[in-house]
Amino acid sequence: MLNYFDHAATSPMSAKAIESYVRAAHDFPLNPSSIHTGGILAHKALEEARKKVSSILGIREDEVIFTSGATEAISMVFSSLLWQKNPGRVLISRVEHDAVKSFIPLLKEKGWDVVTLRAKKGFVNPEDVRNALNENTRLVSVMNVNNVNGAIEDIPAIASVIREYEKSIKHKILFFSDSVQALAKTDLDLDGSGVDAASFSAHKIKGPRGVGMLYLRNRNAIRPLAGAGGQEGGLRGGTENLASIISFASALEDAYEKREEKEERVRKLSERIKESILETGLELNSEGNVSPYIINISTPLPSEVFTRMLDDRGFAISSGSACSNNAKKGENIIEAMGYGNKRARSSVRISLSDETEEDEVDALIKAIKEITRGI
Amino acid sequence: MLNYFDHAATSPMSAKAIESYVRAAHDFPLNPSSIHTGGILAHKALEEARKKVSSILGIREDEVIFTSGATEAISMVFSSLLWQKNPGRVLISRVEHDAVKSFIPLLKEKGWDVVTLRAKKGFVNPEDVRNALNENTRLVSVMNVNNVNGAIEDIPAIASVIREYEKSIKHKILFFSDSVQALAKTDLDLDGSGVDAASFSAHKIKGPRGVGMLYLRNRNAIRPLAGAGGQEGGLRGGTENLASIISFASALEDAYEKREEKEERVRKLSERIKESILETGLELNSEGNVSPYIINISTPLPSEVFTRMLDDRGFAISSGSACSNNAKKGENIIEAMGYGNKRARSSVRISLSDETEEDEVDALIKAIKEITRGI
Repeated sequence: MLNYFDHAATSPMSAKAIESYVRAAHDFPLNPSSIHTGGILAHKALEEARKKVSSILGIREDEVIFTSGATEAISMVFSSLLWQKNPGRVLISRVEHDAVKSFIPLLKEKGWDVVTLRAKKGFVNPEDVRNALNENTRLVSVMNVNNVNGAIEDIPAIASVIREYEKSIKHKILFFSDSVQALAKTDLDLDGSGVDAASFSAHKIKGPRGVGMLYLRNRNAIRPLAGAGGQEGGLRGGTENLASIISFASALEDAYEKREEKEERVRKLSERIKESILETGLELNSEGNVSPYIINISTPLPSEVFTRMLDDRGFAISSGSACSNNAKKGENIIEAMGYGNKRARSSVRISLSDETEEDEVDALIKAIKEITRGI
Repeated sequence: MLNYFDHAATSPMSAKAIESYVRAAHDFPLNPSSIHTGGILAHKALEEARKKVSSILGIREDEVIFTSGATEAISMVFSSLLWQKNPGRVLISRVEHDAVKSFIPLLKEKGWDVVTLRAKKGFVNPEDVRNALNENTRLVSVMNVNNVNGAIEDIPAIASVIREYEKSIKHKILFFSDSVQALAKTDLDLDGSGVDAASFSAHKIKGPRGVGMLYLRNRNAIRPLAGAGGQEGGLRGGTENLASIISFASALEDAYEKREEKEERVRKLSERIKESILETGLELNSEGNVSPYIINISTPLPSEVFTRMLDDRGFAISSGSACSNNAKKGENIIEAMGYGNKRARSSVRISLSDETEEDEVDALIKAIKEITRGI
């Protein structure tokens, strides 16, 4: 797809992922829970996909719970808190995705003590986590890679703080990290990072929509809303979306092929964009240890105007996150990062994929310069 | 698919539905929430699909909420109760799908007064509903077509009872009807039936897995767990699974083409199976006003043994529902219908589609007779 710079919103399904979907729909059309031959074949294919995903991510098969997407994975973790009899404390970073933040009013209503962690330029300070932990804390939610500006949180450091604190109390604290933008785009070490749970989505890595996963280290750490048909070991009911799951596994395999090389290539493109942004006198809202796949900038124009002006020239970028276009209320994430209201209202996101080409980047830079000169 | 008699578990995606998925993935690859041109095109395609579905079902567009499947649609309704401050009464039929029944322990834990409605041979008596209603009642859940034996509930009569009772109290009672097996297989009149909410799944009508819908007459009647990205009017967060939604709409369109003719044809096949079942001395657990698409029978063998013996001969049927193969605990639905433990443990389900052929049916009858003679 030419001139598409909104991969953090969604990456078009690759031809291979589509092929994989179609083949799976043909080859394994039956219900993995059925006990007839076709059902058994479908079940085997499901477990093969799980094996592939877990092996790529270096985790155990029983740590992989397929869901309808990251939103559902997040919802499984948070709704698990909602009916606990004795609400406690929850730490949530101020720059989480709406899929996480939308649980805050609910948790408060149910008597939970929600502490919002500040995140200057997108980064949560592990020291702040330490200070906010108390003996009633049950959950800490800090995303891995910020979807708006690409900030990479220091997940291992935050995990250490939590694990250290845990020694002084009687219960485990669940450390959840929404990791949608980290999948295949950073050096993700789920097993070594110290997180207990993480959410992922297939459609951000050229897989199908409607499928994702919850990484869950200890299956007893959360309680499902309701088991329904008992699928996914009782944690996620509903007939398994097998064709999408197989296609997700295939997309993940592709994304991990020469992953580091791809990241390096994208880093160069990203640096080129950032340099020209600064040359042009625009402001960069992606600073420090950020993902090369996401660049947030501020221009002299309101976010939507600049987005539309680039759109008129054939370039797709994003004003904020795609989801935030629906949820108009709520805090602007760039503002929450401390960049100020003015800069926030004029911020736009450019996001790349591992297939973004050099000439596309050059054309984008040219278009940005033209627009900027004209104002 | 030859000799496949497990369409109530899942119906393989039709070639047209697969084509429709692939075309949509190509034509509308972007995020419907994005404000660039590709996003706007995707949004339009989403609304076109909603229009198509609502027009086929004779309902308003804003009554259609796309979900990841029926389980999620059910979950939206029930989880909406779970955090209400003052729990009240809920009536739930004893023969509901596990996706509904699995909420019972949770509701009880939260202080809800759950009344289970008996359903002899699968049928809930509207009189029982009347007797169970009290001024604290908030929800009545009675499925439309039973997934195990095909019993068609008298939904309009139950709705009348509820609407009549409502006049004497100060609040509305939500009448929810899980309608997965009714879609395109009965004369479904959502608007005229008096239900407030209903759940549907695409993969039971040859559409894709991982997509379904909640019919919801009044959008304020339920409260979403969390709005996430604000999609589906704030009721269901998560990037829309557009290719699957478009494919669902296409499958629905196909299923509704000459729907009544198809049902009549299936009814004849179904009658033929039922006659031969009785001739063979087996027992029929689908009696009275039942869907022609589902036939439940009891044989002298345990359910799994009979299912496997047919499987060996190349016929796929089901022992109970597919989902119940995971959730081994819980009440057997045939037993709950009053057919007794012995008959329940030997019950199997034969389910047809609108493409089931006469010669397949004859071959199935022959195989059943052979097995039965051999024991």
